[in-house]
Amino acid sequence: MPQSAPVLTFETLAVSLEGNIAHVALNRPEQLNAMNGDMFREIGEAFRALDAIPSVRAVVLSGNGKLFTAGLDLKESASLLGQAEGDPARVREKLRRHILFWQDCLSTLEECRAPVVACVHGACLGGGIDLITAADMRICTEDAYFTIQEVNVGIVADVGTLQRMPHLLPQGILRELAYTGRKFTSAEADKYGFVNSVHADKEAALAAATALAHAIAAKSPMAVTGTKAIINHSRDHSLRDGLEYVAAWNSGQLLGEDVVKAATAALTRQEVTFADLLAADD
Amino acid sequence: MPQSAPVLTFETLAVSLEGNIAHVALNRPEQLNAMNGDMFREIGEAFRALDAIPSVRAVVLSGNGKLFTAGLDLKESASLLGQAEGDPARVREKLRRHILFWQDCLSTLEECRAPVVACVHGACLGGGIDLITAADMRICTEDAYFTIQEVNVGIVADVGTLQRMPHLLPQGILRELAYTGRKFTSAEADKYGFVNSVHADKEAALAAATALAHAIAAKSPMAVTGTKAIINHSRDHSLRDGLEYVAAWNSGQLLGEDVVKAATAALTRQEVTFADLLAADD
Amino acid sequence: MPQSAPVLTFETLAVSLEGNIAHVALNRPEQLNAMNGDMFREIGEAFRALDAIPSVRAVVLSGNGKLFTAGLDLKESASLLGQAEGDPARVREKLRRHILFWQDCLSTLEECRAPVVACVHGACLGGGIDLITAADMRICTEDAYFTIQEVNVGIVADVGTLQRMPHLLPQGILRELAYTGRKFTSAEADKYGFVNSVHADKEAALAAATALAHAIAAKSPMAVTGTKAIINHSRDHSLRDGLEYVAAWNSGQLLGEDVVKAATAALTRQEVTFADLLAADD
Amino acid sequence: MPQSAPVLTFETLAVSLEGNIAHVALNRPEQLNAMNGDMFREIGEAFRALDAIPSVRAVVLSGNGKLFTAGLDLKESASLLGQAEGDPARVREKLRRHILFWQDCLSTLEECRAPVVACVHGACLGGGIDLITAADMRICTEDAYFTIQEVNVGIVADVGTLQRMPHLLPQGILRELAYTGRKFTSAEADKYGFVNSVHADKEAALAAATALAHAIAAKSPMAVTGTKAIINHSRDHSLRDGLEYVAAWNSGQLLGEDVVKAATAALTRQEVTFADLLAADD
Amino acid sequence: MPQSAPVLTFETLAVSLEGNIAHVALNRPEQLNAMNGDMFREIGEAFRALDAIPSVRAVVLSGNGKLFTAGLDLKESASLLGQAEGDPARVREKLRRHILFWQDCLSTLEECRAPVVACVHGACLGGGIDLITAADMRICTEDAYFTIQEVNVGIVADVGTLQRMPHLLPQGILRELAYTGRKFTSAEADKYGFVNSVHADKEAALAAATALAHAIAAKSPMAVTGTKAIINHSRDHSLRDGLEYVAAWNSGQLLGEDVVKAATAALTRQEVTFADLLAADD
Amino acid sequence: MPQSAPVLTFETLAVSLEGNIAHVALNRPEQLNAMNGDMFREIGEAFRALDAIPSVRAVVLSGNGKLFTAGLDLKESASLLGQAEGDPARVREKLRRHILFWQDCLSTLEECRAPVVACVHGACLGGGIDLITAADMRICTEDAYFTIQEVNVGIVADVGTLQRMPHLLPQGILRELAYTGRKFTSAEADKYGFVNSVHADKEAALAAATALAHAIAAKSPMAVTGTKAIINHSRDHSLRDGLEYVAAWNSGQLLGEDVVKAATAALTRQEVTFADLLAADD
Repeated sequence: MPQSAPVLTFETLAVSLEGNIAHVALNRPEQLNAMNGDMFREIGEAFRALDAIPSVRAVVLSGNGKLFTAGLDLKESASLLGQAEGDPARVREKLRRHILFWQDCLSTLEECRAPVVACVHGACLGGGIDLITAADMRICTEDAYFTIQEVNVGIVADVGTLQRMPHLLPQGILRELAYTGRKFTSAEADKYGFVNSVHADKEAALAAATALAHAIAAKSPMAVTGTKAIINHSRDHSLRDGLEYVAAWNSGQLLGEDVVKAATAALTRQEVTFADLLAADD
Repeated sequence: MPQSAPVLTFETLAVSLEGNIAHVALNRPEQLNAMNGDMFREIGEAFRALDAIPSVRAVVLSGNGKLFTAGLDLKESASLLGQAEGDPARVREKLRRHILFWQDCLSTLEECRAPVVACVHGACLGGGIDLITAADMRICTEDAYFTIQEVNVGIVADVGTLQRMPHLLPQGILRELAYTGRKFTSAEADKYGFVNSVHADKEAALAAATALAHAIAAKSPMAVTGTKAIINHSRDHSLRDGLEYVAAWNSGQLLGEDVVKAATAALTRQEVTFADLLAADD
Repeated sequence: MPQSAPVLTFETLAVSLEGNIAHVALNRPEQLNAMNGDMFREIGEAFRALDAIPSVRAVVLSGNGKLFTAGLDLKESASLLGQAEGDPARVREKLRRHILFWQDCLSTLEECRAPVVACVHGACLGGGIDLITAADMRICTEDAYFTIQEVNVGIVADVGTLQRMPHLLPQGILRELAYTGRKFTSAEADKYGFVNSVHADKEAALAAATALAHAIAAKSPMAVTGTKAIINHSRDHSLRDGLEYVAAWNSGQLLGEDVVKAATAALTRQEVTFADLLAADD
Repeated sequence: MPQSAPVLTFETLAVSLEGNIAHVALNRPEQLNAMNGDMFREIGEAFRALDAIPSVRAVVLSGNGKLFTAGLDLKESASLLGQAEGDPARVREKLRRHILFWQDCLSTLEECRAPVVACVHGACLGGGIDLITAADMRICTEDAYFTIQEVNVGIVADVGTLQRMPHLLPQGILRELAYTGRKFTSAEADKYGFVNSVHADKEAALAAATALAHAIAAKSPMAVTGTKAIINHSRDHSLRDGLEYVAAWNSGQLLGEDVVKAATAALTRQEVTFADLLAADD
Repeated sequence: MPQSAPVLTFETLAVSLEGNIAHVALNRPEQLNAMNGDMFREIGEAFRALDAIPSVRAVVLSGNGKLFTAGLDLKESASLLGQAEGDPARVREKLRRHILFWQDCLSTLEECRAPVVACVHGACLGGGIDLITAADMRICTEDAYFTIQEVNVGIVADVGTLQRMPHLLPQGILRELAYTGRKFTSAEADKYGFVNSVHADKEAALAAATALAHAIAAKSPMAVTGTKAIINHSRDHSLRDGLEYVAAWNSGQLLGEDVVKAATAALTRQEVTFADLLAADD
Repeated sequence: MPQSAPVLTFETLAVSLEGNIAHVALNRPEQLNAMNGDMFREIGEAFRALDAIPSVRAVVLSGNGKLFTAGLDLKESASLLGQAEGDPARVREKLRRHILFWQDCLSTLEECRAPVVACVHGACLGGGIDLITAADMRICTEDAYFTIQEVNVGIVADVGTLQRMPHLLPQGILRELAYTGRKFTSAEADKYGFVNSVHADKEAALAAATALAHAIAAKSPMAVTGTKAIINHSRDHSLRDGLEYVAAWNSGQLLGEDVVKAATAALTRQEVTFADLLAADD
């Protein structure tokens, strides 16, 4: 699996590394971080790149400017829809492939070795919900609100919201939000555990997200990455399948230096440093 | 798919249409809306009929009289159980088919194109829980309570409660209710998101349910019906299966007049009217 | 299915019967109920034995001493890991079988006919979470806290926590706990319905757990055991599969004396006593 | 489940009953039994009607005229496709519902209590394959051939062939047939067990199909119907799910008069007559 | 996992060990190896015992006397069915548990580490089919025949045939056999690959089965047992699930001494001896 | 989805295009086409590249030199295994990722839009089986033989054979091959439909494979690609899931120019040319 050095320069994202923490910021503040095709593609590229950087152990995802994201870039989308010419079947096959491509871009958050903490301030609309439901955890500001915008623009959400939200909200609440497109406040999000915590402003929320990322990054990367892989697997499998899979997994991954280091540290109550999961040349 | 004009006159239900909203009321108030065989059958007939009426875009389900429903009509059931004569195997095969038939009747709420808002006042017992868990959303009064009554009459709930409730309540809470048959208050229902909102009295609850129905009916019926179908699908499938399915779905259903209308309306902030999903002659 | 008389004397557990209620207490108080290999094995033996005693209709699970359990016995585990010698592949195959064996031990709570109420006071760490998530219901004291300890010792939880917790907590909250190994308070547990109730101290919590067990034991054992089996089944199957299964189940189990007794009692509001599910010689 | 007396008069089918055997013949011989919308609908109606007639225990399905069926009525289809006007999204939603309706029509063969023996002579093309793969067994003449015609008319088979054929032919053979639309001879069909037997001409094939139907009809209808239901279930479930389901099923259906009659007959080697599965008023 | 020394003395079976091969023979020749309750239980005990003996690497299963087995012991079964007294619901719950117990007994063939070769001579009826379908491979004599006997005694096969046969025969052929209870000859069994080979008489068949067992026993037990586990898993899972599982499996089990030994032997074309999978004290 | 022009020059493969047919030949004849890491990677790259070339409608896969492939390059693998140093857990996590990467390389045959015909001459061993089972169809020479080589080198096959073969061979036959590593002849492969046809020599086999590819390439690419996608989906889903998915699929992809062209051609019996599925700039 030869991997070239990752490039972390993007048109629509601001990506930075600090120690074991990566920070990905949606970076079209003038356009309220509206998600255009470039942003979808770059989100996929960025998270695949971060996944391949051995030092990255947790990722914070936020939005630059006055809000997290206004969702899909409607102007670009309208322009694209208007161009749909030619054989109606081929137009739709192309659309199907396009949706799958966008889904794949957002699913990189879920497939990334390192847990992702989304930090939402202001508004998170439409495609933004698809995006943050693919993150591991969500933190927000008091003034944050969430809108499943797709129904308001006459379409069925198709890049993840309707598949991931049922694991994050009670069915009846989700259906109300998905059918009406109404705002969902930070207080409601907190009530049902859709977010992990709510903070006074963006600064406080980012501090909390970063602290959470640091807490994760201090743990064994073998344990954290394995735990993420197993929780992802559990969501989609029966109890018995899940148990068999984790037994096979741990038969390979449990016996190593991290468990010795961590167990010793736990018994002696001393700090410990874990090696990266992957070596630079893997 | 030839469809005759739907008949909306029932023995055990009061069904009315007003604009794009249908209202189904359990209508055996003298019997506390106890659910007999006729009511199960008519619920199936009513929701299939409403599904076929192009103008229907949302349904409110309530109970006439002093409470939502006392659940299964025990007198009728006792009478039926007493008649089980003949070959024990054929008696049980007949019972199995009977259960499947009742399940199918209640599943029409879930299969109905149009979202269903259940509005519960007073008591909702036994079969009533099976019924409202098949609805999309639940609204109730402060004095409402819910009882998984089946355990109190010595049987395993078999028309949907034990299949649908795990998606509506935390497992431990559900198990307590299902094993003990105790009352579950409107406050508890609100805490866990089993209901969408709680209101002072039936009038207020019905007003809220109707307002919610109107909010849904104002949206694109292609988007609302598709969203319902996809949420139903997501519940029973892996994430990957769900994503593939919605991509195939939207390859057919996304490119149409609603998205143009809705997107234009969203950009211009003007009202828009959507055509029915089905034509009268479909 | 010949069954010898169950032996209820254990090294690491204190098991007692009182009427239809069994009480299982983790009983290594000097070691803070640390879970060693003997305790895993005996938990399996105890719950299989209780399952086979016809009079048992509900089980309370608690911990003797100052807290519920400190989790895995790290000293024993460290010792075991240190002994892993020989062919690396065979060592890992042996480990895989060992994990499956421990999973099977804890799954006996779930497979036990009788519902299990876990009563947690003080701390419940690591393996203790794996244990109580296999119970039907959880009750705790105000000072109780819960820690997914595995990440703190450098491993992926592999005896049930990551498979069962997603049905007990919102995904984002679970991921935070599993990635950081932080304490989860009784207040948080209550907020999301991870526990059924919180009590001032162990005495009050045990009284509540016992009262809940008695409420369950007073119901038809055919109905309670069937309900537990069906809820377990529902968790791992699609809605349609679940409905078909319960229809087949009830075609065999519904027509019996309990439904007659219970229905009569419900109509006459009189007490009723149900026979055990199994006879002594089954 | 009120059931009106079934009407067995159809436009496109010839349906007859003789003892416990029903015979359904595709009956548009002038049009080579081309399957139009009426035929799809009537196939659904016919098999639902036969399912409800207590005396029916096996069904033979054949085609009148010089061949089994030429498949989809292309003229009607072309005409339908040409009428697709209006909102492109609604046209496709209507098409989706139309496909589901046709699928449901053919699935009635699979859902029918009584096993279905398809008897193919001459050609069986396109929709004819969708039809006979929904039957339990297939018998054919030496001159019979089978063509997955859909690819030849530029579409993906969508009424069952691609879902049911993988259980009837090796994957590589199926893919060749589905990608090339070439003829598949009776000899090949015999080689892989796609058909149960091959006969010299239609008369011999019909005689064999009828003899097979009679052999089935002589067995306990509880056993035959249950076996069909369980084989259908097994196809779509894991081994463990299948075993649990049949145990629940037989707990209700095994203990009855048929097993006593049949076991006695087996021991005494005498003929036995079984009662119908359903009574006339069920 | 404490394991006492296995006892290989049985009432209804003759079990012997020779080198790495175990031989299990149904041993009620006077009763034509009719399968009574003792035989079901002992089959479970025998295969669990063999699984725990480190030296066992392959198992041959045959029948003593003039045929493989006449299937279920009808006299015992008739006697059991006649005793079904008491509450009809409890009688059926007991029956359900009984069926699950018998299923578990036969599933030990599938769960046994070591592959099982069934060697059938003469007749293999009813429960015998359930038994041999749980084996890995089947070999038979020319005069062997197979009958799904359950339909002939008025019941639905419920200990594995209807779940495992769909993976061993084309659906249409299976359905004919299951609906009619007709004999299935060795020639037909060979045609569809239901058996691996057909031999002139029992001696030749046993020799072939033993040779096959020896060929398997000469291979790496890590490779053989892992291959069996993965094939079992593949049957019940999607392609993607299967691929993920085998990757996790091999991450633990691939890197060991067997691959070094075997690869060296393959390159040098020399014989090699592999250590047992389990040590005597595991 | 920006796609750069595909490069079809490889170290280990010879890839050529002729009209709508691509030809991929394993091209390490001196090493008997032994599959090294480069070949796995390049197989993935080649099939992804071909998938993206609009004109490609079918692919023939063969081996240059005297046989198809000797399977895994044991020398390279031995060398890799010998280098496994460092933390045992990280070594195994790296191995797990390596296996998943190789699986992904071979799965590109299955994910490729265009059907793949494997043409095997001489030997096809080990990894070669993993490779050809991911193809749509297999054709071989009389002297061809197939060996599941992994057991002979002490490992569990982990790049697809054990997941895909159960759909291509009867379970008992597969298990014999996988446990013993014996040769499987072209005659046996033909008997069970593992191959589509057997030919005298490589020239004849290649001619047949190419003719089959041409027959496929002449059909509507919308129909062929859709059919491949739906057959892939059917393998892993229940009947009902499969039917719902194809209905959603065809709601988008059916109404187009190909069905008009093909239906017209079918009625008029004239040749027709279909446009590529994708345009050059998709």
